[in-house]
Amino acid sequence: MALDKTFASDNNSGVHHKVMDALSRANTGHCVAYGDDDFTRTARGRFAQVFGDDAQVFFVYNGTGANVSALSAMRRSFQGVLCADCAHINVDEGGAPEAFMGSKLLPCQTVNGKLSPESMKPHLHALGFQHCSQPRVVSITQATELGTLYTPDEIRAIVDFAHDHGFLVHMDGARLANAAAALEVPLAALTSQAGVDVLSFGGTKNGLMFGEAVVVFRPELAGEFPYVRKQCGQLHSKMRFIAAQYDALLSDGLWLENARHSNAMARLLATEAASLPGVEVSRPVETNAVFARVPREAIPAMQAVSYFHVWDEATAEVRWMCSYDTTPGDVRAFVAGMREALQIQPQTAT
Amino acid sequence: MALDKTFASDNNSGVHHKVMDALSRANTGHCVAYGDDDFTRTARGRFAQVFGDDAQVFFVYNGTGANVSALSAMRRSFQGVLCADCAHINVDEGGAPEAFMGSKLLPCQTVNGKLSPESMKPHLHALGFQHCSQPRVVSITQATELGTLYTPDEIRAIVDFAHDHGFLVHMDGARLANAAAALEVPLAALTSQAGVDVLSFGGTKNGLMFGEAVVVFRPELAGEFPYVRKQCGQLHSKMRFIAAQYDALLSDGLWLENARHSNAMARLLATEAASLPGVEVSRPVETNAVFARVPREAIPAMQAVSYFHVWDEATAEVRWMCSYDTTPGDVRAFVAGMREALQIQPQTAT
Amino acid sequence: MALDKTFASDNNSGVHHKVMDALSRANTGHCVAYGDDDFTRTARGRFAQVFGDDAQVFFVYNGTGANVSALSAMRRSFQGVLCADCAHINVDEGGAPEAFMGSKLLPCQTVNGKLSPESMKPHLHALGFQHCSQPRVVSITQATELGTLYTPDEIRAIVDFAHDHGFLVHMDGARLANAAAALEVPLAALTSQAGVDVLSFGGTKNGLMFGEAVVVFRPELAGEFPYVRKQCGQLHSKMRFIAAQYDALLSDGLWLENARHSNAMARLLATEAASLPGVEVSRPVETNAVFARVPREAIPAMQAVSYFHVWDEATAEVRWMCSYDTTPGDVRAFVAGMREALQIQPQTAT
Amino acid sequence: MALDKTFASDNNSGVHHKVMDALSRANTGHCVAYGDDDFTRTARGRFAQVFGDDAQVFFVYNGTGANVSALSAMRRSFQGVLCADCAHINVDEGGAPEAFMGSKLLPCQTVNGKLSPESMKPHLHALGFQHCSQPRVVSITQATELGTLYTPDEIRAIVDFAHDHGFLVHMDGARLANAAAALEVPLAALTSQAGVDVLSFGGTKNGLMFGEAVVVFRPELAGEFPYVRKQCGQLHSKMRFIAAQYDALLSDGLWLENARHSNAMARLLATEAASLPGVEVSRPVETNAVFARVPREAIPAMQAVSYFHVWDEATAEVRWMCSYDTTPGDVRAFVAGMREALQIQPQTAT
Repeated sequence: MALDKTFASDNNSGVHHKVMDALSRANTGHCVAYGDDDFTRTARGRFAQVFGDDAQVFFVYNGTGANVSALSAMRRSFQGVLCADCAHINVDEGGAPEAFMGSKLLPCQTVNGKLSPESMKPHLHALGFQHCSQPRVVSITQATELGTLYTPDEIRAIVDFAHDHGFLVHMDGARLANAAAALEVPLAALTSQAGVDVLSFGGTKNGLMFGEAVVVFRPELAGEFPYVRKQCGQLHSKMRFIAAQYDALLSDGLWLENARHSNAMARLLATEAASLPGVEVSRPVETNAVFARVPREAIPAMQAVSYFHVWDEATAEVRWMCSYDTTPGDVRAFVAGMREALQIQPQTAT
Repeated sequence: MALDKTFASDNNSGVHHKVMDALSRANTGHCVAYGDDDFTRTARGRFAQVFGDDAQVFFVYNGTGANVSALSAMRRSFQGVLCADCAHINVDEGGAPEAFMGSKLLPCQTVNGKLSPESMKPHLHALGFQHCSQPRVVSITQATELGTLYTPDEIRAIVDFAHDHGFLVHMDGARLANAAAALEVPLAALTSQAGVDVLSFGGTKNGLMFGEAVVVFRPELAGEFPYVRKQCGQLHSKMRFIAAQYDALLSDGLWLENARHSNAMARLLATEAASLPGVEVSRPVETNAVFARVPREAIPAMQAVSYFHVWDEATAEVRWMCSYDTTPGDVRAFVAGMREALQIQPQTAT
Repeated sequence: MALDKTFASDNNSGVHHKVMDALSRANTGHCVAYGDDDFTRTARGRFAQVFGDDAQVFFVYNGTGANVSALSAMRRSFQGVLCADCAHINVDEGGAPEAFMGSKLLPCQTVNGKLSPESMKPHLHALGFQHCSQPRVVSITQATELGTLYTPDEIRAIVDFAHDHGFLVHMDGARLANAAAALEVPLAALTSQAGVDVLSFGGTKNGLMFGEAVVVFRPELAGEFPYVRKQCGQLHSKMRFIAAQYDALLSDGLWLENARHSNAMARLLATEAASLPGVEVSRPVETNAVFARVPREAIPAMQAVSYFHVWDEATAEVRWMCSYDTTPGDVRAFVAGMREALQIQPQTAT
Repeated sequence: MALDKTFASDNNSGVHHKVMDALSRANTGHCVAYGDDDFTRTARGRFAQVFGDDAQVFFVYNGTGANVSALSAMRRSFQGVLCADCAHINVDEGGAPEAFMGSKLLPCQTVNGKLSPESMKPHLHALGFQHCSQPRVVSITQATELGTLYTPDEIRAIVDFAHDHGFLVHMDGARLANAAAALEVPLAALTSQAGVDVLSFGGTKNGLMFGEAVVVFRPELAGEFPYVRKQCGQLHSKMRFIAAQYDALLSDGLWLENARHSNAMARLLATEAASLPGVEVSRPVETNAVFARVPREAIPAMQAVSYFHVWDEATAEVRWMCSYDTTPGDVRAFVAGMREALQIQPQTAT
């Protein structure tokens, strides 16, 4: 069988046609490079509308670049970053944060991928002790690596805890759009209005070709950000081609439409997959990710339908991602294929 | 007056229409992210055709990312990088090489931007002396920051000097296409066939939207390069969109056509500008850059015609860049505008 | 009451009189700086006698310097270091490893501070996956931060596991002397003969004034170590004054005598303290450290006798260290003082 | 012949007997480690007397450690350090500044090793340009690597230039004592009273066994310095043994006596050596260093008398250093030996 779409990653999708159109429209004549152009000015205005007038946006290339440059601007090398043990910065960025920042990540135990004030407290004993990396930034991921969500109140509680201790708050919003769509709140409600200090706002997983945005809500951090971005290797010359994409994404609710759709497809997939023999959805399905424990022996046959990642070898937990362009037909074909794979493969206890 | 094109930077141009078409064609369905896709495989094949079967290509985002990741793969932090004093890595990358590599750059005095074995010899006394950063890599820029060229023989002489001392050779080829076009040799003649070990092969300045290529000619360096690239924040998820652009650039001689054209426009500009009162072309015009000493007082008026950078405040030397899409009409309009600016502005000795 | 000795840290002790004598004897005339002197040559010979002819020793300043320089020589920045979650490099070196190496530490869960092959296996899934820091070095601490020991067989099992996966093994031997004394084996049995690749061999905690030794058992790593040490800021000019101390420590069994004594004092302290009301020795007392859970409310009064660190606030577990110069009288006075403190302080359930 | 003393380096000397006595006196009983002890408190008081009440001193291990930690506290990684092209941090610290700080050094051309406001001006064009490392610290060496001196007025002029541009000023005072002795001014006149922000105050070259001092004159930089020092691997456990040495050095004018003596020996050596055939003293002899151009062919024979370094191979310029314990007899024996070497060796034009 041939599936139209894949479920391994929301990075496997292409570029939304409205974004592609925006790229074509931006390809006209010469512009000053590095951001001093009208496309970038327009996009900056969009961000101000969405996140508030204090929001200053800096475009970068990818999620690692966004996170590393954002965090770099927020701390000195002797200061550490509190984060979830499963945070992308901690496990999936190849040591880029440590290499570039020279700072220690201070991982905290989580439930369903979510940090809480309680989970950070063990690191407080290091404060003021010269032998330890000093906690300075709290980095949370919205939606989390496990597809779960922080409510605005939960974010505010973390922000209050952080600010009370003199820490700053960074949000890795690679899938912030999915979170806002699911919670039915504006993007600002989860970020600027909740007290977040610096945001990595992802676009690639939501229909862009390339480019992410670092949004700085503290004016005192924004002044030096251009130098940090440059030193991180994240300053694009033909800046208009990132700016134009974000302009499209933030226009006419495209970000919301795309995110709502991929969220809906994940709910459909979770519902359909729950009926598969031996398959158990293992995490709350709140955005565009479905996690499930599956019969271990059947995994290769299931992956042959459409490749996906095993999240935890120990528990045979797998991850399926939906994209802005996943269709109900794709979902049903995927589940049907897996059902066939599971029937061929004798199920034994995992 | 309104100029169609600018002369401040070859980064001010847009995307060549054939590259734009390639991007649209690549935007079809889902692909495995991070490079395991057919577009990337096809592009890899193109590189093998152009640079030889030992060439392994790794796509990155920009020139700084290409240079930093390439150099990172070639040395340890206690080893240094010999480079021209005016090298982009030394003066225009915001300290990214030092920050990411932890290595020292060892600048050498140059004539018209070109390194030579002789210019590197003062650094040899450091070899084996534990108090000094140990020279390990020679990085040359082709074409140089001053628009000049290394002949294949000059490259070979540097490579021989380097290899004789146990050093590796990196080439910053942000404008390698312009160099090959000017020298009327294949790209391989300046790189793999001349013994270069790792190449940063630029595309953005020659008509791409984004993306550069690191080409590794030493198989023993290629194995670990993916990890270096990831840690440098230079791994693109939707890799096909860089690959497809390079496929277009290397197909049907597009790279050569674009480079020849911008070189020709620079020659035209140099010829026309030489007739301007008080203006003296100050460097050999070998590729797409024109350097000139101009009447200092007239600079603001000349920049008002079309903004350009002052290269050296002390000598009132300025830089004009031509692009793949610069037209003879653009050049003539620019020169005409500058002539007018120079006439209005009384010339005094610079 | 006034205690002659403290129990907070084995760094609170002074310098053994034989070491002080050696320093005085070394203070004669001029020597070539940076290690090319007879004192250093003599000390090198001692190390070869103790650790084998392949052992090459490099003196540094302190434990952090030893660990960071040793690990730096063993990996590239994209490679990570597997270590115990409670390892000194992970929790007590202020982020120095990350800052200098740019590498990620990959902490593993431990029992009583000890790594095992099993505890490292979850990190193996990262091997070959470009998104993850690549495990390259296993760092174990002997004796551990909890005062426990690896037997020669346990070390060999870890070394075999590491080498089978292409990893190198580093030992943080800040208290290696205590371990060898307790196990009644030569220093080589725990290091060179067990397959360890690079050792940080501590002296300061065992009677020296300053200075630690990095012992490299792999010749291919030794050649570049001088440059790594220099770049780490760990090259001493008047090297003879570290060399002479190590010469004294390794002569006439001084290292063993000191370590045996501090171990014996810890056993005495554990025995005596076990009789204190509400006090429970919480870890095997194998070297010169005693860990105990104590009545939480009594801690301030107990610390007033002689200050010590609370190891784990959550469980009211404290740490007492014995030194080469601790006397039985010191131990008894300390326990007597704590007994008094515990009696004054009403005990309630912890 | 056998010389009692060497002239290669002031690091070849041993430890002054008063310092040795202070070390013995400090070796009494137990002290809290890491600086919370009476010896350290006493030494801090001495620094306050000498440098003023705002001076906060932090002991480290060596010159590289002092410079790297001091500079680390003064800048972010995207900010650069203006320094003399011949500065120790630029040529003799093995790339430690770049590796630890991730910052770029911005070398300036000098005359006789001395920076001036004029020499830094070419770097000002980078200010505010996002592509360039941003100058933030000026680091000067007193006495310079060439044995020359900045007068208090020259220091003040550099400080004013720096502060006017928002830069901070660091002084590498590895031989500050020699400078103050030569200029016949208090240490404060060259540092705190001249507006210097952070000082590396060397002791090892002036009679100590180990240890240097970072003196912070800006209170806002002092608060975080302990963490920087720890992360740099420069925090000594048995701190009292550095503190006691500095206490001795700053007591009863020992620093001044030692420095005056080594300066006087250098003047004697310069006078005597000037009479050697073919030898020309090449730099002002202002402290304890003598630079001379000598007959190139005779260098090996001259080095056989007592080894010394060739400073500049191109000009056959050599360096001779005098120490606190060099005697007039040593100087005369050295010159006599060189005279003999020069007579045996036929002199030809260099």
